[in-house]
Amino acid sequence: MSILVFGHKNPDTDSICSAIAMAELQTKLGKDIKAVRLGNLNKETEYILNYFNIELPELIEKVKDEQEVILVDHNEKGQSVDNRDNSKILLIVDHHKIDLSTADPINLRFETVGCTSTIIAKLFKENNLVPSKEIAGLMLSAIISDTLLFKSPTCTDEDIKQAKYLAEIAEIDYEKYGMDMLIAGTSVDDKTAEE
Amino acid sequence: MSILVFGHKNPDTDSICSAIAMAELQTKLGKDIKAVRLGNLNKETEYILNYFNIELPELIEKVKDEQEVILVDHNEKGQSVDNRDNSKILLIVDHHKIDLSTADPINLRFETVGCTSTIIAKLFKENNLVPSKEIAGLMLSAIISDTLLFKSPTCTDEDIKQAKYLAEIAEIDYEKYGMDMLIAGTSVDDKTAEE
Ligand SMILES: [Mn+2]
Ligand SMILES: [Mn+2]
Ligand SMILES: [Mn+2]
Ligand SMILES: [Mn+2]
Repeated sequence: MSILVFGHKNPDTDSICSAIAMAELQTKLGKDIKAVRLGNLNKETEYILNYFNIELPELIEKVKDEQEVILVDHNEKGQSVDNRDNSKILLIVDHHKIDLSTADPINLRFETVGCTSTIIAKLFKENNLVPSKEIAGLMLSAIISDTLLFKSPTCTDEDIKQAKYLAEIAEIDYEKYGMDMLIAGTSVDDKTAEE
Repeated sequence: MSILVFGHKNPDTDSICSAIAMAELQTKLGKDIKAVRLGNLNKETEYILNYFNIELPELIEKVKDEQEVILVDHNEKGQSVDNRDNSKILLIVDHHKIDLSTADPINLRFETVGCTSTIIAKLFKENNLVPSKEIAGLMLSAIISDTLLFKSPTCTDEDIKQAKYLAEIAEIDYEKYGMDMLIAGTSVDDKTAEE
């Protein structure tokens, strides 16, 4: 049974892209893992997966008993898969406040940065690995999304540093791409033709 | 006001040595920080601090309001300083099950290894730093203590790897030193002259 990796319910770009990036990292580390999602994509994330030609992660509503999971971009029970208590959490990578209680020790990597993908980019480096061009593009997109192109108060120097590193790998002009991406998300997100 | 770093109440060797090691790491990273303790030393830890000629960390019972703290080898409120809610937690490094709720995002580094000092040894490396000979000896001692010289079921390959690395820096025969240290702890710990 593959490990499953997913972000929070009502997923944003960071939750989708960080799950896919974590799946690539763990695959490179020799693990059998699959990125999944707990809800529908927003328009911004749709634009990004389309841009980098990345397959949509499978939608799940529950996990099997004893399912091994990695959580990204969330830790609170209410934001996670409904029957999470049945699963075995291997690792959580997140940048939110914590509200968590576990029966056993687990691996946690929380940093006070603007985006989960910033931490995952560091994890690639710590393991002497380089993400593929497309996955670098997804992580860059997540950082641009969570930090509103480095303008949010939660944005840190580390986010900017990793974003620039990822933009090089992805061979992307992040200023131009970032604006296009944010506009793709805001202009049509959750709006009907009449709005 | 210096950052304070401490382990759990009723401190064991890992709580004391990891706090002192974290203080060295953060000092090398340019931070103003001081290792303190929440209780009396056991005989094993006394032996270790004496062996490496390391000063006893100051005993504290409370922290000042807004005190910046780093926690090692624990995360649960009941094991921490009594008025922890008044403090600002910067980072927790631990290897225990988690029971934690915070108002804001904080830095967390939890790994499913046998000892907190194993994680701190990794943090030195990730920051391209090498601990001093004495601090390497303290971290080695913590790993030996928590894993009972690599024989506990919680001991992992990572603990052994870091212990061997630290033993080289400390220039210590860890098998011999480890036995002496464990014996120093068990033979006289908490016993009066009559026992
Ligand atoms: Mn999110
Ligand atoms: Mn996020
Ligand atoms: Mn302990
Ligand atoms: Mn410990």
